[in-house]
Amino acid sequence: MRFTLHSTDTGSNARAGEIVTDHGVIQTPIFMPVGTAGTVKSVHQRELKNDIGAEIILGNTYHLNLRPGTEILEQAGGLHKFIGWDRPILTDSGGYQVFSLAEMRKIKEEGVSFQSHIDGSRQFFSPEGAIDIQRSIGADIMMAFDECTAWPCENLPARKSMELTHRWLKRCISHFNNNAPLYGYCQSLFPIVQGGTHHDLRKISAEFIASCGMDGNAIGGLSVGEPAEEMYAITELVCEILPPGRPRYLMGVGTPVNILECIALGIDMFDCVLPTRNARNGMLFTSRGIINIRNEKWKNDFSPLDEHGSSFVDSQYSKAYLRHLTISREILAAQIATIHNLSFYLWLVKTAREKIIEGTFASWKNEQVGILGRRL
Amino acid sequence: MRFTLHSTDTGSNARAGEIVTDHGVIQTPIFMPVGTAGTVKSVHQRELKNDIGAEIILGNTYHLNLRPGTEILEQAGGLHKFIGWDRPILTDSGGYQVFSLAEMRKIKEEGVSFQSHIDGSRQFFSPEGAIDIQRSIGADIMMAFDECTAWPCENLPARKSMELTHRWLKRCISHFNNNAPLYGYCQSLFPIVQGGTHHDLRKISAEFIASCGMDGNAIGGLSVGEPAEEMYAITELVCEILPPGRPRYLMGVGTPVNILECIALGIDMFDCVLPTRNARNGMLFTSRGIINIRNEKWKNDFSPLDEHGSSFVDSQYSKAYLRHLTISREILAAQIATIHNLSFYLWLVKTAREKIIEGTFASWKNEQVGILGRRL
Repeated sequence: MRFTLHSTDTGSNARAGEIVTDHGVIQTPIFMPVGTAGTVKSVHQRELKNDIGAEIILGNTYHLNLRPGTEILEQAGGLHKFIGWDRPILTDSGGYQVFSLAEMRKIKEEGVSFQSHIDGSRQFFSPEGAIDIQRSIGADIMMAFDECTAWPCENLPARKSMELTHRWLKRCISHFNNNAPLYGYCQSLFPIVQGGTHHDLRKISAEFIASCGMDGNAIGGLSVGEPAEEMYAITELVCEILPPGRPRYLMGVGTPVNILECIALGIDMFDCVLPTRNARNGMLFTSRGIINIRNEKWKNDFSPLDEHGSSFVDSQYSKAYLRHLTISREILAAQIATIHNLSFYLWLVKTAREKIIEGTFASWKNEQVGILGRRL
Repeated sequence: MRFTLHSTDTGSNARAGEIVTDHGVIQTPIFMPVGTAGTVKSVHQRELKNDIGAEIILGNTYHLNLRPGTEILEQAGGLHKFIGWDRPILTDSGGYQVFSLAEMRKIKEEGVSFQSHIDGSRQFFSPEGAIDIQRSIGADIMMAFDECTAWPCENLPARKSMELTHRWLKRCISHFNNNAPLYGYCQSLFPIVQGGTHHDLRKISAEFIASCGMDGNAIGGLSVGEPAEEMYAITELVCEILPPGRPRYLMGVGTPVNILECIALGIDMFDCVLPTRNARNGMLFTSRGIINIRNEKWKNDFSPLDEHGSSFVDSQYSKAYLRHLTISREILAAQIATIHNLSFYLWLVKTAREKIIEGTFASWKNEQVGILGRRL
């Protein structure tokens, strides 16, 4: 994996760059649609590519390990071949889901034992195991196995958790270095900065992560309920420490406004379930603000979903039609809203990139922040 | 609407023809995907057109009248504009749903009062009302409002029901003739042959329907639980009476084998929820037989869904991947299986048409009937 910085904004810390992987190029800043169990829900792979313009998607190690499981993934030749997606894939380590979804989890130095949320079966994730699953998946970018603390979390437990994450990271890196990829192409491993909302811990963690010299670095444990201002403060602090020559990935963030603000702080990569999950509940992120399509006011609004929208759904379907489909619980509602939202998110980061290169990002960002958060 | 008969099979009563409507040409025999509430469930309109090759789709008057309702449909300029579909649409009359879905229905000479299955609201359908709703929808082909009897049904109640259907038909035709279409293009009205599985009644009904001289004619009240042999016998009897110069539509039929057998008897148009509804339950109709994709045997079968399949889903996705999506209850499972099944149904009728024109339909049909019903 190679990362090249193309340009840095004059009025902020925003960066435009390029990540080259064996499955193709990713232009940063980038948003990665979440494809939990080997599918970005309700979207065909060719739509991801041709309509949404996704350059990389995310898979969830926890889910993929339970279903279809590593045996089938290995027989298929990895997740890319299994799902029919030839662009890059990033996988999380499973840590986040273990802590948020699994039942009866028990954390020890060795790893975490837990019960599957699907069938209650006993499972165990260790740093080495999480790397092995991600090798079976064949992700272009793998994530280190970390512990996520909830918010709020006192300094002492946050410190203990961070220290465990750091010890686990060493084991992840060692296991990663000692085992070749399975499918003939390169895999990278990103470590994750933790430390809750404690500036002292975040500084320690960012310095430790930076010292590991990996291909890219991530910030975890944010967007877990803390105020946006705290998220921005931690992101700023960490970005100042992480090496500028490597991509910075802010995990699980966020709204269009969050993304623009964090691009301004120096983040290059984002993922979030908001555009997909909220689409399925009838929420549209548009160039003019946020729409709840279930609202009665749209029932006879035959205008396009988003007049500035770049995707075919924006011109082919009206607000009134999407409202009808949503109220009627039709599957097509989820399909249309998801394609719209993801297209919008990809448009947002692509345009941010253009503005950074043009040198007009900061003022454009400030203007957009005033628009994109409005409820229409 | 114009119907032209291109050729009639030498070894059977199969016909190849063409229906010209103001929204384009339909080549017969044809299968019409069911788009109940203004959407063929889980399929984008452009997929219907470009991938499935649908030439006409069906809408359900009962559902569309409840949601979004005629007021919104008229404001939109009709169903075509509301959903973004510029090819022909056929609507049923609502009768079938009134009898199968609605609660507390009460049949009188004037019409049927019933309660909506959605909100329990009081509704009333008359022959004139059913025509008016279909005028608001703007269907290219409207269906007469009929009463459907359940199976089995004794001769006397089936006769009374048929006679009511015939009286309602006269009112439908009169109302249809006295009211111009709303949107500037032509609408046709098809009457429906009823009479249960009673040959004497079917003969009376078919003769009455034939005497009405409408643009096309339909056979209702079949595929409601009777043995396939009875369905074929009634279809044969009715096809002998209905005028050869008008298209014949067999409502609600059926499996691939049913469709081939009824094409051989002289049917030109079909609709059925099987390929769409069963897709959502994991059943695939393929060129080699029927697949239950949930079956464990497909879990590591990485071959295409259907090696002879004509649609992109057949080559881009494997059986193992579709099984994984189905087991995981992913929306994409419904999308893939629906596109596959509808593409297969459209391939089937298109190929039947080619064989009729070539003069090889009968032997091809007999060969296919032995293959398509097998469980793989």
